[in-house]
Amino acid sequence: MIYLDHAATTPLRAEALDAMLPWLRDGFGNASSLHAAGRRARVAVDTARETVARVVGCEPGEVVFTSGGTEADNAALHVLRSPAMRTAGRTALVTSAAEHEAVRRPAERLAADGHDVTVVPPAPTGAADVDAMLAALAPNASPAVGLVSAMLVNNETGAVTDVRALADAAHAAGAWMHTDAVQAAGVLPVDLDALGADLVTLSAHKVGGPKGAGALIVRAGVPLDSFVAGGAQERGRRGGTENVPAIVGFATALRLAADEQPATAERLAGLRARLLDRLDDALGGRFVVHTPLDAPGASAPHILCVSFPPGPRGPLDGQMLLAGMDLDGVAVSAGSACTSGALEPSHVLLAMGVPRETAGATIRFSLGRDTTADDVDAAADTLARVVARVGG
Amino acid sequence: MIYLDHAATTPLRAEALDAMLPWLRDGFGNASSLHAAGRRARVAVDTARETVARVVGCEPGEVVFTSGGTEADNAALHVLRSPAMRTAGRTALVTSAAEHEAVRRPAERLAADGHDVTVVPPAPTGAADVDAMLAALAPNASPAVGLVSAMLVNNETGAVTDVRALADAAHAAGAWMHTDAVQAAGVLPVDLDALGADLVTLSAHKVGGPKGAGALIVRAGVPLDSFVAGGAQERGRRGGTENVPAIVGFATALRLAADEQPATAERLAGLRARLLDRLDDALGGRFVVHTPLDAPGASAPHILCVSFPPGPRGPLDGQMLLAGMDLDGVAVSAGSACTSGALEPSHVLLAMGVPRETAGATIRFSLGRDTTADDVDAAADTLARVVARVGG
Repeated sequence: MIYLDHAATTPLRAEALDAMLPWLRDGFGNASSLHAAGRRARVAVDTARETVARVVGCEPGEVVFTSGGTEADNAALHVLRSPAMRTAGRTALVTSAAEHEAVRRPAERLAADGHDVTVVPPAPTGAADVDAMLAALAPNASPAVGLVSAMLVNNETGAVTDVRALADAAHAAGAWMHTDAVQAAGVLPVDLDALGADLVTLSAHKVGGPKGAGALIVRAGVPLDSFVAGGAQERGRRGGTENVPAIVGFATALRLAADEQPATAERLAGLRARLLDRLDDALGGRFVVHTPLDAPGASAPHILCVSFPPGPRGPLDGQMLLAGMDLDGVAVSAGSACTSGALEPSHVLLAMGVPRETAGATIRFSLGRDTTADDVDAAADTLARVVARVGG
Repeated sequence: MIYLDHAATTPLRAEALDAMLPWLRDGFGNASSLHAAGRRARVAVDTARETVARVVGCEPGEVVFTSGGTEADNAALHVLRSPAMRTAGRTALVTSAAEHEAVRRPAERLAADGHDVTVVPPAPTGAADVDAMLAALAPNASPAVGLVSAMLVNNETGAVTDVRALADAAHAAGAWMHTDAVQAAGVLPVDLDALGADLVTLSAHKVGGPKGAGALIVRAGVPLDSFVAGGAQERGRRGGTENVPAIVGFATALRLAADEQPATAERLAGLRARLLDRLDDALGGRFVVHTPLDAPGASAPHILCVSFPPGPRGPLDGQMLLAGMDLDGVAVSAGSACTSGALEPSHVLLAMGVPRETAGATIRFSLGRDTTADDVDAAADTLARVVARVGG
């Protein structure tokens, strides 16, 4: 199998599994227990917390471990429900229509609960439309905007949003800035000071770590109200027994991914260019590219998203494309795995203005650290074969 | 180390780890991906779901995997916020004052958000006071009660609540019944039909499974609104990439624990009686027992909770007791690990009417599958030594 679906999940790195195994075996203590078994686990969690903090450039106390990116996104939007934000009357949300379901669904729920929620159409690349979002940050809005949420790297197109510009505007308007950086970690620098965001979502299994761990970075001052409420874990900001092995594996993988990030980015950008060249050779004129490739830094280097507009024989069947690739041993997707069950075209592509029939015939390639030149060559050749077979 | 803190967490069983390892290695696919790697992971999750369903006696579709017990408890109480319950005007909660923080905190938040929340003092054992809770289920209450929540086994005293009686009364009043069965699984039968509950919380790491997995059993008809909202995972009832290895390990451990449950219960009950005898011999008259031992089935067999009332030289220092036990190699706790950081006496014991100074000098022994007669003998002898040292 040629696995080009790293945006869905990545193989667990051997170093991460090795780091986890002692905590899956003898080091089973509850990190909140006061006895020796608990204290050993506590040290492991605290060490992992320091590692994550160092990687992203924040204080250890600003790292809140969660069960993953989706929970972290939910927790970030939950800030608008905190007593402090309600008292301040800052309960409105401004977000982009191209966000992940983990932001969209909580945003819909906030709207259903009476919060003022502005969903701004994205730029044609899938990045947040910064100018349009700035316009939505009206200084006289009532209720006042409390949070702006826009993902750093769009998980379907790879487009990078200028989070810094949004953060500066959010702060000028008295709001907090959240960014889901799940698809950025490991392929772009994720530096809290440079980003300017107050809340940042990270996921372990997208960077070679295990499923079941993630973090919400919460800068000092943000009135985070625990979303998963329970015991005093994570300084009272996330209840539930600490998942020690997964947290340790997460920190290990994130540190390695960050160390390797410049080399990874260069290598994947080269592979992506090769993939596109090969696709152009085989299928030139048949497909459109959604991933912005014109300006350096416009997209994360691991994603290439293409669609096939209807041909003379009508629209291509996207499900058949995917099935054909799978049958020929290439694992790719149409977009987010979280919505793979649905037969609807991607909400991201539709929001970008892609026609429905074109959006319905989409392939997202996402490369990773195990991807080789042979892999991308074979994937391009396979897609050409499948397109010929599926017709359209 | 003698580990008698199984109510805080249990060692991961070798069988569970073995079942997890393939999914931590090659089987890394995202269970929501449509390609072969994803479908393999999906089969593993579905098989685990069938296992859990068979163990507790429900349909596979009624199992919603979560990141653990705390999230499952949050999700259960979240039912009161669902559109269906709001529309029906069934937004009130009746619960017990002896619940875990994972129910208490969400209940407090419901109250802060305007829900009518009745918190009923527990029986002197820590079990829910069924008669008092029945009285709180007033048929003419407005807003009407939508949910009753009471844990099956109290995590501090081990007392068993008659969930069936509460469920019948809840149903008669038109409400749903939730029970946190985290401390019951593996030591008591957990059978959905016998319990009569509509929502049941389970946790993997309390039954020899991994941290980071649990389930909320949701009987058909309960209008569950996803708590962690995002993708379409768990039939749209819990967003976030499925934690395949942890789910597989959970199902493996739960099945084994259920298979062994009758033998485990008998063995642990014997060990607990032996522990109490030995404590009586060494410290008779110095301590009070909170765990109800009089009637068969009044408590789960793995927990023994004792306190030391103030002696002629004043109250005993509970922190010193715990530290002394730890120093002498016996891992026990004062109560829930989730509140171990706090120096306050247990809210459960205080709600039971235990005087503050007595509650502050509490030891909870919790036995598990690796516990031996030698362990409990040594633990009793150690406690006698530590009490003599700490004085009071």
